[in-house]
Amino acid sequence: MTSEPIRLGVAGLGRAFVLMLPSLRADPRLRLVAAASPSPREAAAFTAEFGGPCHADVAALCADPGVEAVYVATPHALHRAHVIAALEAGKHVLVEKPLAVTLADGLAMVEAARKANRHLIVGPSHSFDAPVALARQIIDSGEFGRLRMLQALNYTDFLYRPRRPEELRSDQGGGVIFSQGIHQIDIVRLLAGGMVTQVSAMTGAWDPQRPAEGAYAALMHFANGVFASLSYSGMAHFDSDVWMGNVGELGHDKPADSYGAARRALASTTPADEIALKEARTFGGGHQPAPARHHEHFGPILALCDRADLRLTPDGVEVSADTRREFRPCPLTAAPRAPVLDALVTALREGRAPVQTGAWGLASLEVCHAILASAASGQPQRLSHQITTGMEP
Amino acid sequence: MTSEPIRLGVAGLGRAFVLMLPSLRADPRLRLVAAASPSPREAAAFTAEFGGPCHADVAALCADPGVEAVYVATPHALHRAHVIAALEAGKHVLVEKPLAVTLADGLAMVEAARKANRHLIVGPSHSFDAPVALARQIIDSGEFGRLRMLQALNYTDFLYRPRRPEELRSDQGGGVIFSQGIHQIDIVRLLAGGMVTQVSAMTGAWDPQRPAEGAYAALMHFANGVFASLSYSGMAHFDSDVWMGNVGELGHDKPADSYGAARRALASTTPADEIALKEARTFGGGHQPAPARHHEHFGPILALCDRADLRLTPDGVEVSADTRREFRPCPLTAAPRAPVLDALVTALREGRAPVQTGAWGLASLEVCHAILASAASGQPQRLSHQITTGMEP
Repeated sequence: MTSEPIRLGVAGLGRAFVLMLPSLRADPRLRLVAAASPSPREAAAFTAEFGGPCHADVAALCADPGVEAVYVATPHALHRAHVIAALEAGKHVLVEKPLAVTLADGLAMVEAARKANRHLIVGPSHSFDAPVALARQIIDSGEFGRLRMLQALNYTDFLYRPRRPEELRSDQGGGVIFSQGIHQIDIVRLLAGGMVTQVSAMTGAWDPQRPAEGAYAALMHFANGVFASLSYSGMAHFDSDVWMGNVGELGHDKPADSYGAARRALASTTPADEIALKEARTFGGGHQPAPARHHEHFGPILALCDRADLRLTPDGVEVSADTRREFRPCPLTAAPRAPVLDALVTALREGRAPVQTGAWGLASLEVCHAILASAASGQPQRLSHQITTGMEP
Repeated sequence: MTSEPIRLGVAGLGRAFVLMLPSLRADPRLRLVAAASPSPREAAAFTAEFGGPCHADVAALCADPGVEAVYVATPHALHRAHVIAALEAGKHVLVEKPLAVTLADGLAMVEAARKANRHLIVGPSHSFDAPVALARQIIDSGEFGRLRMLQALNYTDFLYRPRRPEELRSDQGGGVIFSQGIHQIDIVRLLAGGMVTQVSAMTGAWDPQRPAEGAYAALMHFANGVFASLSYSGMAHFDSDVWMGNVGELGHDKPADSYGAARRALASTTPADEIALKEARTFGGGHQPAPARHHEHFGPILALCDRADLRLTPDGVEVSADTRREFRPCPLTAAPRAPVLDALVTALREGRAPVQTGAWGLASLEVCHAILASAASGQPQRLSHQITTGMEP
């Protein structure tokens, strides 16, 4: 163990990396020493800012002896190959959610981490958001009795933001279940202890122009008796951020005139333009996320306990107890995604893995597949890859 | 057919009647000509205000030749006997929701109405609220394409308000499924066309002091492909009326200091006191509902269509369309429950039954039982008594 900064290599300089960048820039415990990207523009931007090499492929990044851990931020379907390459090269791995698209890929990745004896952490996901952690702490403390019921809902225009073609195809991990549902599932599993026993769900794919699943509603049962109702639409017009103080997913204040912006932009866009717009949102493309003045969030979440209900907000947790209401704030950290980097540093420098390991990510991925399978069959799905929040792989 | 006021007799002068009273008082199309109540205080109050007789039992009320229609507002478990007695005496019937507790009772009541060739209307329920009717009209018009998905949620302290013992026992129709869930089911069925094909649900009964079901989450499939996510807790601390502009269920503005009032009152109450408190909320007991300055409502309801989402509010419907948001108001009527009385008048004076007939109420009651059965078995429940909004019995 050392207290040296973690020497991080980044595979993929797309939108996911752009969203992590403010947090990476702000954290002295990590140094971005190398990257891999097929895009000359992204590569030039990386070297210009961070000095290190930007390799042409992930294999070269994994072979780079200066890299201690690899942050895999490539498209979902490539996670398996890139994560296993990094693990086999002896690197620790932080991989973007979802862990993978297929369960077979996820299982292979968890097995590869075990064999290599390296950390595999799945993140960022909104289960790392500070108000989620605070709610979990309150629930685990037993201060207000047992958790009984969870409600999570989120209404966004996710499907109408600029997309690559595969992001609109379910068989390639597109649509909202893998990209968005995974956040809700991660949060709900974290609050309820992790062990999902049964999933019933319906999904909607209503726009032939964007044919992936755009919405779902699901009911989850947990081994400890808790049940959860989850709803999500990425084809919504109503914006549930109005119930989050008009704070957007990334912790930014939403301008009043932002209503309908994604659909308006798309309406005047050709398919080729859409790819260009998506490119503009990758590293060096000029598009910057709005500054975060609150914690990130994933829509309204309610956790009903015996003697209080917890409502997660972008600034903390509202505790509605038997006779009084109080607000427990979560002070802002230096960067919105500091908890993800905390997890990486704690794993690599102190040997303690977070809850969100590969096995955890596999369990959440299993719920994604259960949602799809239940919607297709009309039958509840039983699960077999679940782990508890207390159980380290 | 005549345009004379309907000569209405009321069976039961309890809380349900008290909540209907402002609307009955305000409506010149009806006259309260008689009642039935075993309570001398309630009887005296009735005769003092309305002049007509208050019979000691429902049989006598049904035999009263001055009564044209009977409003059955007795406890759930007595609905069958009272409704059938009224029908067999040739009266039309308005019966409080739920139609009955058991499906057998409900079936017998529907059959009795058919045989007697009299109207049987189930109401009031929040499916009569003006914003629900407006949303249904927008959906049926096809202005924004097809309805795809519904979300209904409501978090209240229902279980902690003063209750009679049977209201806390599920086998007597107590708990939230029959008393409260029925509102949500009625609304959702009305918006989605009525034909529920499958129900998956979980329920919670977490307070041994008040052992009826206090909460549920359900997923409903409709024959037209719509799906709905429903959640309700009557054991909640979080008050979802904050998402309804701090307007309470009865259309009243909630005072800021009302938080926790039901639990605070109950905490200093003995079981005997609780019965007295419940009595105080019946007719002549002195407890008046707060004045309604908005329409009644049953918590946040979202209806997601192809080109707009509808959010029901206590004042109308917020329409979030592809590129713009607009608000469509529902002007206040003379009394909050005017639509229920409209339905009664239209049926008796114009021969047109509302959607909310006995057969409709039976279909909603079937969903209540499906929620309980699914929660008990972990299996989705298929339904066989559903009818469409377009289909009159």
